Amino acid sequence: MALPQTQALGVGMVGYAFMGAAHSQAWRTAPQVFDLPLRPVLAALCGRDRAAAEAAAQRYGFADVETDWRALLERDDVQLIDVCTPGDSHAEISIAALEAGKHVLCEKPLANSVAEAEAMTAAAVRAQARGVRSMVGFNYRRVPALALARELIASDRVGEIRHVRVSYLQDWLADPAFPLTWRLQQEHAGSGALGDLGSHVVDLAQYLTGQLISGVSGVSATFVPERPIPGGDGRTGPVTVDDAVAFTARLESGALATFEATRFATGRKNALRIEVNGSRGSLAFDLERLNELEFCDPADDPATQGFRRILVTEPGHPYLSAWWPPGHVLGWEHTFTHQVRDLVTAIAKGTDPEPSFADGLQVQHVLHAVWASAAQDSRWTPV
Amino acid sequence: MALPQTQALGVGMVGYAFMGAAHSQAWRTAPQVFDLPLRPVLAALCGRDRAAAEAAAQRYGFADVETDWRALLERDDVQLIDVCTPGDSHAEISIAALEAGKHVLCEKPLANSVAEAEAMTAAAVRAQARGVRSMVGFNYRRVPALALARELIASDRVGEIRHVRVSYLQDWLADPAFPLTWRLQQEHAGSGALGDLGSHVVDLAQYLTGQLISGVSGVSATFVPERPIPGGDGRTGPVTVDDAVAFTARLESGALATFEATRFATGRKNALRIEVNGSRGSLAFDLERLNELEFCDPADDPATQGFRRILVTEPGHPYLSAWWPPGHVLGWEHTFTHQVRDLVTAIAKGTDPEPSFADGLQVQHVLHAVWASAAQDSRWTPV
Amino acid sequence: MALPQTQALGVGMVGYAFMGAAHSQAWRTAPQVFDLPLRPVLAALCGRDRAAAEAAAQRYGFADVETDWRALLERDDVQLIDVCTPGDSHAEISIAALEAGKHVLCEKPLANSVAEAEAMTAAAVRAQARGVRSMVGFNYRRVPALALARELIASDRVGEIRHVRVSYLQDWLADPAFPLTWRLQQEHAGSGALGDLGSHVVDLAQYLTGQLISGVSGVSATFVPERPIPGGDGRTGPVTVDDAVAFTARLESGALATFEATRFATGRKNALRIEVNGSRGSLAFDLERLNELEFCDPADDPATQGFRRILVTEPGHPYLSAWWPPGHVLGWEHTFTHQVRDLVTAIAKGTDPEPSFADGLQVQHVLHAVWASAAQDSRWTPV
Amino acid sequence: MALPQTQALGVGMVGYAFMGAAHSQAWRTAPQVFDLPLRPVLAALCGRDRAAAEAAAQRYGFADVETDWRALLERDDVQLIDVCTPGDSHAEISIAALEAGKHVLCEKPLANSVAEAEAMTAAAVRAQARGVRSMVGFNYRRVPALALARELIASDRVGEIRHVRVSYLQDWLADPAFPLTWRLQQEHAGSGALGDLGSHVVDLAQYLTGQLISGVSGVSATFVPERPIPGGDGRTGPVTVDDAVAFTARLESGALATFEATRFATGRKNALRIEVNGSRGSLAFDLERLNELEFCDPADDPATQGFRRILVTEPGHPYLSAWWPPGHVLGWEHTFTHQVRDLVTAIAKGTDPEPSFADGLQVQHVLHAVWASAAQDSRWTPV
Repeated sequence: MALPQTQALGVGMVGYAFMGAAHSQAWRTAPQVFDLPLRPVLAALCGRDRAAAEAAAQRYGFADVETDWRALLERDDVQLIDVCTPGDSHAEISIAALEAGKHVLCEKPLANSVAEAEAMTAAAVRAQARGVRSMVGFNYRRVPALALARELIASDRVGEIRHVRVSYLQDWLADPAFPLTWRLQQEHAGSGALGDLGSHVVDLAQYLTGQLISGVSGVSATFVPERPIPGGDGRTGPVTVDDAVAFTARLESGALATFEATRFATGRKNALRIEVNGSRGSLAFDLERLNELEFCDPADDPATQGFRRILVTEPGHPYLSAWWPPGHVLGWEHTFTHQVRDLVTAIAKGTDPEPSFADGLQVQHVLHAVWASAAQDSRWTPV
Repeated sequence: MALPQTQALGVGMVGYAFMGAAHSQAWRTAPQVFDLPLRPVLAALCGRDRAAAEAAAQRYGFADVETDWRALLERDDVQLIDVCTPGDSHAEISIAALEAGKHVLCEKPLANSVAEAEAMTAAAVRAQARGVRSMVGFNYRRVPALALARELIASDRVGEIRHVRVSYLQDWLADPAFPLTWRLQQEHAGSGALGDLGSHVVDLAQYLTGQLISGVSGVSATFVPERPIPGGDGRTGPVTVDDAVAFTARLESGALATFEATRFATGRKNALRIEVNGSRGSLAFDLERLNELEFCDPADDPATQGFRRILVTEPGHPYLSAWWPPGHVLGWEHTFTHQVRDLVTAIAKGTDPEPSFADGLQVQHVLHAVWASAAQDSRWTPV
Repeated sequence: MALPQTQALGVGMVGYAFMGAAHSQAWRTAPQVFDLPLRPVLAALCGRDRAAAEAAAQRYGFADVETDWRALLERDDVQLIDVCTPGDSHAEISIAALEAGKHVLCEKPLANSVAEAEAMTAAAVRAQARGVRSMVGFNYRRVPALALARELIASDRVGEIRHVRVSYLQDWLADPAFPLTWRLQQEHAGSGALGDLGSHVVDLAQYLTGQLISGVSGVSATFVPERPIPGGDGRTGPVTVDDAVAFTARLESGALATFEATRFATGRKNALRIEVNGSRGSLAFDLERLNELEFCDPADDPATQGFRRILVTEPGHPYLSAWWPPGHVLGWEHTFTHQVRDLVTAIAKGTDPEPSFADGLQVQHVLHAVWASAAQDSRWTPV
Repeated sequence: MALPQTQALGVGMVGYAFMGAAHSQAWRTAPQVFDLPLRPVLAALCGRDRAAAEAAAQRYGFADVETDWRALLERDDVQLIDVCTPGDSHAEISIAALEAGKHVLCEKPLANSVAEAEAMTAAAVRAQARGVRSMVGFNYRRVPALALARELIASDRVGEIRHVRVSYLQDWLADPAFPLTWRLQQEHAGSGALGDLGSHVVDLAQYLTGQLISGVSGVSATFVPERPIPGGDGRTGPVTVDDAVAFTARLESGALATFEATRFATGRKNALRIEVNGSRGSLAFDLERLNELEFCDPADDPATQGFRRILVTEPGHPYLSAWWPPGHVLGWEHTFTHQVRDLVTAIAKGTDPEPSFADGLQVQHVLHAVWASAAQDSRWTPV
């Protein structure tokens, strides 16, 4: 059987935990579902523990392993580095990869600080001049319902935006016995709910509305200040990040926005909710029902006006023509498959994928402003 | 037919618009549904326009009319004044009534300013010493689902409270052609969404949690600064109140709260939503579905845990034993009927009904702090 | 105060339990909310136990009591008899009242048998010739959301109807310890879920679609055949009615319908659900959320198509202009208030109110066909 | 890199349309997510059109193609035949494959007639004696929410079952202009909604309850009797299958069930809804929200009783420990991945996977009884 071949795009992945699993499944599934202009090849996976890395490589379908990410950069069979590590190594790996001429897909948040994000963005700009592409993994832009929301706003179905109302609610820290992992330590995670969850919703709010956040007033809380040290025989250590954060904001146009991110919302598992109210329509979404978008069109005749529950599985909906018949719903991981499609397409076309490192930096500026405001009596802080 | 008679409680009502209609229906329905210790008698309705007042009196079932509210205070057949006027006359009428020895039910918000609310509260305290009772009409405390929520929190089914998330969304100002009524003028309405909608949700948040708000950081917006003057031949005038307000807050215990009140949420008609997350459970409510309360109990076995949709129509639920069989839902106006029951019961027992004028004053303090914070760069403002 | 007076309509009510309470509240509330052409006066309430009847009369606001319903028919101050008794006395009372020249409002189901319903309908026709009106109390026609559904179907927003899918689910018999009340005895109740719940949904299906049911195939079940006799010291007696019934049906146009009525649907309290699918649209309703109607319009652009959740509280919706602002929801009992309005209006205008006794008879024919089919191997039975 | 290797399981797939795409993705994803005891190898894909088959093979990751399915049976690198063709070839291919010693996964419905299904089942029994396994692809058994429902019923959380209420609603035939494809022709499809959708819900109802259907009474309809012939220049031909079917049924225990399957439910895209009411609890499910199961437990304290919305994404839920963190929802296609896991596990263990061909035959018996009843005045027909 002589099958036609598209050009390979060798992928080197750093990190193989939660995000590594999701990304590798996307790399394998995307070419089965979409017509990709390049053929992803899972060239090598990198992890410091060779045995664990080899087990992950076999499971995820990578052909080889490395134990030092620098070695990935020297491989000719790798054209793209997929950075799936914790935030404190994003800057170093991404910058080196871009300088080595490798395209980079970096997980969110882009970095743990504005300074790191600035350096990464500068590297991305330099690389771009050489045709090397970079993307930050705000995968929720690729939820079909949110991509549809973006289209509806962009095509003026929502009109002048008055309100954006966002919350990202999880509950995995509600139990005070949950241990003091690296995610609860400022030096590793940068921040808590702010960076992990807040970065998603800040990016989404700006992406959906096509507007930047111009200023914020923030407040944060750490409800459980001490937690058991893992393997610490009952000793506890201080939690040095925020358990929850809330902030008000204004968009460029004067719209009023509210944001909340928390890991203490008992019973809410992954409730990223966003509602946008405009002069010509309203939209509402909840990630726990990610195949649905609610849309209210005040131009409907008054007798039958109401929020429409759109099941975003029609062929005309973003990304859907490649999937199943109407009503056959997608899952969370499909966002990564869509991300792969868009990234590979941009690389093949020689265009810049979105969201860019500059977009990631802009989010970082907003998060920093929230943090600064919270530290200064919630004073209004321009971004 | 010689029927047993309970003692009469003569009601004099000032104002007969939206709230007058709702209150008078409650006065007539309450004794038909509940065993009341006093028999409400609709003695007289007061309005400046005699013809209009007489029409209203006939429709609502009042026996007589007055055109000056002071005349109501002199009537022997009136023991209670029901104040249903706009906020700018609440203080004068209520204080005079209390001084005349009449019980007072005053619509919310208690007043248009802290100073007025303080004077009213002082009058209420003086009257109380003489056995004269007063109550402010935060009727949503009497939504059965919210009364149940209060019980669940009070009985520790929610545990230590981490988050309160409240929004009160309406959309009747979304159209810029809506005219410049008194509700949009600061001198009459005091404020906009803040006082009208915000007072409800501030009271509810404090009532449900049993905690006071200790500080706030606020922001407000007036999206449509000029509107057509009614009968003004196309001329416009300035809107001098807020169209929308948002604020973050802390409760005494350190819980983090977010609030939003707006009349610009296209498609949301009366969406007062409140969610409380605690260490032992969570509650969620939406006034557009006022017969339902959602409750998540993390003590449920993990396989079947989830938010329970409680249809609050069981005989054991607050106020429900007097109504219909399970599943036969109540409406918005029933909150006023419940209010009448509780008020009449307190008067008969010689106890103080809740919420008191002092409660109304406390809400006014919070609203003032929000206003002050919004005026000062959202700076954190203690209450 | 000389108030303008409309002519009185004296009401005599027979029975004062659940339905008596609901009806009397409606008689008192309707003139407060609607502009009625006649003024209902609660003249006399009839019950065999004088003390109980007097207590009920006082609570519900009736001026007098009778202990024999025949006495009501002789009173000059009574123009209308409101029959709120169990089904086995509907025929006798209604026929006598009509012959006495009194208008009749008779609770549903019209009767316990086709023969009784036929006699009642004949009496109604005779009375009609003398200007005496009659109505059967299928109150759910007056749920605003269902009245809206009727309008949408009548104005061809649903197109050619393909499917009607109805279930009426309650659970108050799920517990086998529930006692053997009269409702579970064939000689008093006629039937079980079939007559009590089934009559409602058969009427609704025909009312909404404007079509009659042409044939049925039925099956029924009695899950708990013996129940404790009230005050029977532990002895049990046989349940002689159906606990649940299900049937398929065809409408005149060929549409396919499914029906189910049960008192054994654990957790469902009053879930009357109806869905209609047509060539141009679909409608869905659940009585537990009676202020909402779902409507899908396939003419909406495909990208934003979906079931609209219509909050049926807008001024343009049926009955709503007389009530509260948008989003201020109504309750179950309001259906009776609307029924009073429509009945009083018809009486004043000299037109025949709907649903007529003939409509009630037609429902009885359908129920009988279901019963006959269930008794004969579910054989298809024309109506 | 020397990775540990599990033994290969060579897969030969016949057919590569909708089901072929879903199955092949599952074969590729399952080993990435689950610890499988055998390693699926996509050996060859079979299609009559070589060019199309090669394109499909490349896209889906198959190493080779065949144009005659018999050739697959002769390949040593194929141990399992995955039958994804229309129903009229299921019997021939499956029987030949089993006789050739290949395990078989056959798409549902098992066959177009009882006779075919009997022959297949006999072949499966013979093959089983030689250690050759067979499975019919009722993939919805592997929706985690439905697998959880099965567990809850099996562990007596629902008690004695009273009602099963099932509908499978789609709308792709609502437009009369939809062409006359093979699915609308009896000779190819066997039946319409009955076999395509009805087979799913009959299997589910029996699987969830652990009971067989003992008898049925059915009715069917063909709303649009003529449709345009594809490429027929406007000519039309007769639709020879049912557009919709409805039937009542009893389970072995006496529970009452209602079923409906249609392709004319405007606005419903893939609404497989199932509700089970029992003496100790109730369950409700809708495939359009496949990550959710509703469960009502009457043992909950009455004040907080209600249907719990279980987000079936917890590690303790069926299949979920291998996937993502709580709240990160799955999609429709994951049911096939779960099916692969269970099938491969059974093959490796030498046990019989479920559902068996005998299960498929039993469903066929029920469908036949429905058809027979519908043809005989809906007369009750034992299965």
